[in-house]
Amino acid sequence: MNHLLTEEQLTHLAVKLLRENKKKELDLLLDELQPYDVAKIYTRLPDRLRSRFLVHLNNSFLADVIQELDRNWQIEILNNLGIDKKGEVLNLMDNDDLASLLDDLSPEKSSSLLAEMEQEESDFVKNILQYPEETAGRLMTNRFVWIRNYYTVQEAVEKLKSFAEYAETIHYLYVVDENRKLVGVVSYRDLILADAEEKIENIMYERVISVSVYTDQEEAARLMEKYDFLALPVVDENNVLQGIVTIDDMLDVIINEAYEDIEKLSATGKAIDFQTNSVTAAFRRLPWLILLLFIGILSGSIISHFQDTLNVVVSLAFFMPMISGMTGNTGTQSLAVVIRGLAKEDLNKGVVWRLIFREFCVGVIIGLTCGAIIAVIAFLWQGNAYLGLVVGLSLLLTIIIGTLSGTLIPLLLYRFRIDPAVASGPLITTLNDIFSISTYFSIATLFLNYLV
Amino acid sequence: MNHLLTEEQLTHLAVKLLRENKKKELDLLLDELQPYDVAKIYTRLPDRLRSRFLVHLNNSFLADVIQELDRNWQIEILNNLGIDKKGEVLNLMDNDDLASLLDDLSPEKSSSLLAEMEQEESDFVKNILQYPEETAGRLMTNRFVWIRNYYTVQEAVEKLKSFAEYAETIHYLYVVDENRKLVGVVSYRDLILADAEEKIENIMYERVISVSVYTDQEEAARLMEKYDFLALPVVDENNVLQGIVTIDDMLDVIINEAYEDIEKLSATGKAIDFQTNSVTAAFRRLPWLILLLFIGILSGSIISHFQDTLNVVVSLAFFMPMISGMTGNTGTQSLAVVIRGLAKEDLNKGVVWRLIFREFCVGVIIGLTCGAIIAVIAFLWQGNAYLGLVVGLSLLLTIIIGTLSGTLIPLLLYRFRIDPAVASGPLITTLNDIFSISTYFSIATLFLNYLV
Repeated sequence: MNHLLTEEQLTHLAVKLLRENKKKELDLLLDELQPYDVAKIYTRLPDRLRSRFLVHLNNSFLADVIQELDRNWQIEILNNLGIDKKGEVLNLMDNDDLASLLDDLSPEKSSSLLAEMEQEESDFVKNILQYPEETAGRLMTNRFVWIRNYYTVQEAVEKLKSFAEYAETIHYLYVVDENRKLVGVVSYRDLILADAEEKIENIMYERVISVSVYTDQEEAARLMEKYDFLALPVVDENNVLQGIVTIDDMLDVIINEAYEDIEKLSATGKAIDFQTNSVTAAFRRLPWLILLLFIGILSGSIISHFQDTLNVVVSLAFFMPMISGMTGNTGTQSLAVVIRGLAKEDLNKGVVWRLIFREFCVGVIIGLTCGAIIAVIAFLWQGNAYLGLVVGLSLLLTIIIGTLSGTLIPLLLYRFRIDPAVASGPLITTLNDIFSISTYFSIATLFLNYLV
Repeated sequence: MNHLLTEEQLTHLAVKLLRENKKKELDLLLDELQPYDVAKIYTRLPDRLRSRFLVHLNNSFLADVIQELDRNWQIEILNNLGIDKKGEVLNLMDNDDLASLLDDLSPEKSSSLLAEMEQEESDFVKNILQYPEETAGRLMTNRFVWIRNYYTVQEAVEKLKSFAEYAETIHYLYVVDENRKLVGVVSYRDLILADAEEKIENIMYERVISVSVYTDQEEAARLMEKYDFLALPVVDENNVLQGIVTIDDMLDVIINEAYEDIEKLSATGKAIDFQTNSVTAAFRRLPWLILLLFIGILSGSIISHFQDTLNVVVSLAFFMPMISGMTGNTGTQSLAVVIRGLAKEDLNKGVVWRLIFREFCVGVIIGLTCGAIIAVIAFLWQGNAYLGLVVGLSLLLTIIIGTLSGTLIPLLLYRFRIDPAVASGPLITTLNDIFSISTYFSIATLFLNYLV
């Protein structure tokens, strides 16, 4: 970034201009800034300057600023606005952002805000709120331009011009028939290159890629990414055009889904960020941990079964952390490969069996390598070739089990339509503990006579 | 999606039309499809139909199709094209996609392809290739429209019209001075609303958000996400406009970075997908595993130090998997919170210390809860209150150590400019094994007299 003041300097300047009541200079400054910058400045202003600051923002810009803020700030700003201004700003907000805000408020507060809006806008927002969370219907906006299939190119261009204020967010013109059913799509380029008298239905693409209001947001995002679209039309069950979803919302969806995968893989539970307080963070993390604690006790009770073996050859305990650690690690690796693949690729039986076989082979190769290394080390360290054999053989088997469980468990969950990322790393690791300890002590008990 | 044939049906139809030589029908079909669809069909066609299929695609569409394909398919298509067509298609490809393709070819092959292109286009591609990988300079394109600050609005609109073929990808008009230095930006809307005789420099935004050619691609992507921009200008050290980066490239960057984090967290090493063969996959995963194996042996040697304690109270071994498992799990959770936060937030000292303190408190809360549970269970199971005390106290301490190491290690790596995600879950888990085993056996040894 060039010739830019930092956020801090900008805020400082704004405070100075507000205090000295230099309205014109402040307007000039704000005129140069993006909604994101103004939002940041607002949150840094001293309390008593805030309402005065808001006066300097026109409604449409203010609507954009609000969309850049966190929930608490959004509510604070709305409370700071007069009733008239509030209604107009709400009308101008993106419907999907507004719907998401209203969804977090009490029903009374939400309907009082809706009452201040224009009928058409509030109806649309209420409509959005009907759809389940994380669907395309929930994220769609009515800020798009549709044209009729019987329009001429000239008529379409005129309609487009009358929506000039939206121009920045119009990427495609969607074509509907007399029943508002989506029948085609036209790009700017088609319009510019076509003859003015040409009918839209003759120049439109008829194979429109669209999603249903009930389409999962992640699926919609993936479709936009595949086709490099900036917007995607959303239709109801009768193919009637309801709205569009845009790339900026999809970007947020994609970023959040990716980080949700990381969260689930680490079993952190619901979103914890740097601001979450420690009690909340601890209670979000505890449920998984307590489950894992009990599975961990199960591992202990398995060891207690082999108490006699352990009593005779205490050195077996030396290799326990290594064996269960390695099994857990290879399992986590397989898990990550599967989760990542599932997010990117379409599955069919062929792919699944090939993947399972591949991971089995990976397990064998890794198991043979690490098993051989540890066998030699165990022999040199404890001076017992049989102990080397037992530890090496166990590691080979447990690594194969680890890779297979890291592969099969998420695939099975996926098959039964459970999000495979709930098979978190910690869960796989803890389950693998049980497998690896049973295997290790069983083999040791088998060779017990040679170990002493 | 509505009224759509599947990929398979489309391919089937295309093969049929090609075999029956129905050129017109095939052109009509292709006219309705997106580059992504045509790319998918191409990869499914029988070998001998491919060159014939390519004839039906015009150069600009073909350039888009190539960009949707994997590297090997891209090379295959280029080899299938005649020299003339090849040059034209290369001219029409996005420069950044072409640069990335050329980068993977041998120097001879790459320069022979460049030689077939127009001077201006090949110069730009060569220019891009100068910049380090993963920078904005590497991802920029020259498909943008710039105007001079002394243009009138009318002159700007005329220039814009003459670039009608790019219209779909033009989101902003960048304003440069006589030295091609970036001095402003104008939106469509500003142009439409302004007076035709108005000078551009009077209506442009002067505070342009831009990135340098050397800006990291992830930083550029984050900037676009923050500001909801569809494109971002890229300048050199003298603020001379060099190109723009667009949202579709940034989307790929964001998706890849998120999945790279998952890969690193699970220590899978370099990209492994469902197609990677087992030997390659195994060898990519082995280096980390072998390192972890040796750390695992370290844990074992710690236990061997406490051999006497273990000999006396064998039941201590029963709780080993649980203690090291729980320590590893809480550590992984903290790690995920930190990695996720680092990707989203800006750090300063205040934030870091608050985070460390927060995670410490989380460790205390989780440790007290889980420690109390396990103390009761150990007491009931083994009938020894001191054993319960030892196990519970150990778990409390090791969980605190686990959360702190999961927090501090990635923060320290970040501080020393090492990617914090290399502190993978498996590494944290294995290190935590060492901490937890030492703590557990030290406490047990302390209380040894009460345990027997």
